[in-house]
Amino acid sequence: MTGTRMRPFGRTIPLEDARVIIDAAIQPITRTVRVPLDSALGRVLASPIIAQADVPPFSRAGMDGYAVQAGDTVGATRASARTLDCIGQIFTGDAPAFAIGPGQCVEIATGAPMPVGADAVVMVEETFRAGQAVQIFSAVTASQNVGRQGADIRSGQTVLLDGDLLNPSRIGAAAALGVAEVTVYDAPRVTILSTGNEIIEPGQPLGPGQIYDINRFSLSALVTDNGGVPIARRTARDTIEDLERAVDECQADDLILFSGGSSVGERDLILDVLQKRGTMLFHGLAVKPGKPTAFGRLGTTTFFGLPGYPTSCLSNAYIFVAPALRKLARLPPRRERTVTLPLASRVVSATGRHQFLTVRIVDGLAVPAFKGSGDITSMSQADGYIEIPLDVESVDAGTRVEVTLFV
Amino acid sequence: MTGTRMRPFGRTIPLEDARVIIDAAIQPITRTVRVPLDSALGRVLASPIIAQADVPPFSRAGMDGYAVQAGDTVGATRASARTLDCIGQIFTGDAPAFAIGPGQCVEIATGAPMPVGADAVVMVEETFRAGQAVQIFSAVTASQNVGRQGADIRSGQTVLLDGDLLNPSRIGAAAALGVAEVTVYDAPRVTILSTGNEIIEPGQPLGPGQIYDINRFSLSALVTDNGGVPIARRTARDTIEDLERAVDECQADDLILFSGGSSVGERDLILDVLQKRGTMLFHGLAVKPGKPTAFGRLGTTTFFGLPGYPTSCLSNAYIFVAPALRKLARLPPRRERTVTLPLASRVVSATGRHQFLTVRIVDGLAVPAFKGSGDITSMSQADGYIEIPLDVESVDAGTRVEVTLFV
Repeated sequence: MTGTRMRPFGRTIPLEDARVIIDAAIQPITRTVRVPLDSALGRVLASPIIAQADVPPFSRAGMDGYAVQAGDTVGATRASARTLDCIGQIFTGDAPAFAIGPGQCVEIATGAPMPVGADAVVMVEETFRAGQAVQIFSAVTASQNVGRQGADIRSGQTVLLDGDLLNPSRIGAAAALGVAEVTVYDAPRVTILSTGNEIIEPGQPLGPGQIYDINRFSLSALVTDNGGVPIARRTARDTIEDLERAVDECQADDLILFSGGSSVGERDLILDVLQKRGTMLFHGLAVKPGKPTAFGRLGTTTFFGLPGYPTSCLSNAYIFVAPALRKLARLPPRRERTVTLPLASRVVSATGRHQFLTVRIVDGLAVPAFKGSGDITSMSQADGYIEIPLDVESVDAGTRVEVTLFV
Repeated sequence: MTGTRMRPFGRTIPLEDARVIIDAAIQPITRTVRVPLDSALGRVLASPIIAQADVPPFSRAGMDGYAVQAGDTVGATRASARTLDCIGQIFTGDAPAFAIGPGQCVEIATGAPMPVGADAVVMVEETFRAGQAVQIFSAVTASQNVGRQGADIRSGQTVLLDGDLLNPSRIGAAAALGVAEVTVYDAPRVTILSTGNEIIEPGQPLGPGQIYDINRFSLSALVTDNGGVPIARRTARDTIEDLERAVDECQADDLILFSGGSSVGERDLILDVLQKRGTMLFHGLAVKPGKPTAFGRLGTTTFFGLPGYPTSCLSNAYIFVAPALRKLARLPPRRERTVTLPLASRVVSATGRHQFLTVRIVDGLAVPAFKGSGDITSMSQADGYIEIPLDVESVDAGTRVEVTLFV
């Protein structure tokens, strides 16, 4: 044992500075992939969809009723009905085979192609039929109750844009055009590197000094929830050689997350490895929990070094990793749901750091739920969090605070 | 062709009545399934998770620094340091092998097990080391910077409840307990029945009178987005026999959606089939778009008959099917995001129905985007919708309206 091998923290940087540095370093993904339309929900379109034909492809009845010449219905009322001769019936899916002339009509189903000669549809509720004679009780104007060919989409029209997030209605619009497969941006591959000799997999028996790997599971879930594909890699031991090998393996991925090993202990070798192989953009945040967070570049990819403590790790993943990943994946910012409630008890935050404080909601009050950075239940049993800016030293009980909800 | 075969609508029921009927008919799923923890995001836990051991499983250092006896640090300051004899080093993952006595300390890493005899940790920033002599610059109290065994979770404690939605932090809490697999409620199986002879699959060439199937794609996406598993079934033709076979096949599923065939045309046979095989709870809604919507029971399952028109179909799916499916799946209500904006132009809604009007957001104004119920672009090119209650006949330009956003 020789000398002072534990390195104290240097300067920490404020929340907003960290956000600016991350935002500048993260570039939206450019790799694309083809997917079937029925697996495209939540994906981001990588090339515009342009209509190759009109939608609807033919003029069609907009109501169940009778296709007519509008001129034949002028002045029709219940008291003074017009009577037309019904010469046939058109179902949906029929090829429009016949034409009508003055004084004639055709029974037609919603969505069926309009017969030649007809220019409007009288809805069935406004008619009475006996044999071939159909009484018309109200006048229609030309085009009334008709869906014109191309009324929804014109051939040549750009229907969806590069960058559009595919939600149910946009998937419907692609289907309307007969598109069965779409080109979307690939989902970012996110390496999650578990470090630490004390960490073992859930499902295994626990030896002395060992704890279960929490962060790989919570981070994988957060990555999936924000459009990424988590790729778990294990490091067998915290040795320089092992870490170098692990870091080299994941340089082809789109983002690297590691947790643990970013504090100042002697064995925190991964930062040495990353600093040697890449560029550290910051290390140390004026944020609580989660001070020992690092961020940097490694070849063409970027990495986050997150604290080993589960709540610190996941808290910073929500605050920094999720927005970065969404930018990388070209997803819109997460929709946060917030509620404003009175704080149940006074909170002191004289840390000189921007604090994210987990709270439970009990009887309409925001009750501080933070136990410790090492406690996963600080988050799993909380309903959300409040933020206390770096220059605020305490918040009194009863103060109305904005709670950002987790679920 | 004989007589009046198209059936006019009877009475329509108001939005709120429909919601009550649906809510009474839908029962949360009880079927469960085991899934690996790393695929459990967004699933709903079906049995509580009770800790079988303490977390952390041993007392550990909460900081990088020196494990000490707190009593040895009383009065320590930078000006008046205490000097302790460092007798060893404990890394994370080590089994705690030795004990310290008065005047002694051990170098310790965050997360490493505390040695016997030590009751506090002095953080490295408050020390200076030369050889085995460690100067201590500030006093600690007993337990300071120590994570006590069981401080996060006590053995026997119920950590997660039946019904908890598994988010990243709850997945982390299960991992902390060594749980590798969880019992969750099964995702509801939702049959989507495409009806209509005119409907063909995207990717195929379009014949005369034919259109592409939109609703199966938009509904499948909506089902996936709300915790269900969409199961597509095709009916070859709109014949009673074919529909009866299709309906019989899907009675084992948790929910049935069909679109088309719920208006009043002669070929709308599916309602006849459902009425014969099951119980219609309502048919016809005072809602625009989407009047010809039906809902009922079929054996142990329930069905929605949605309009064939894409915007009517998807609009009612958002309003009625999504909440019903979330209740079935035991998911919390969808988080809606709303913005309040001035309406760009006057809207008339003298329909006697509760109207859902799609809008685009342009230059901070809500611009009506509704083209027609048959137009999928009414939704795919909209940013959200506003609601106009049944008793409101018009909304003036400039009125501030609440827009519920789609994305």
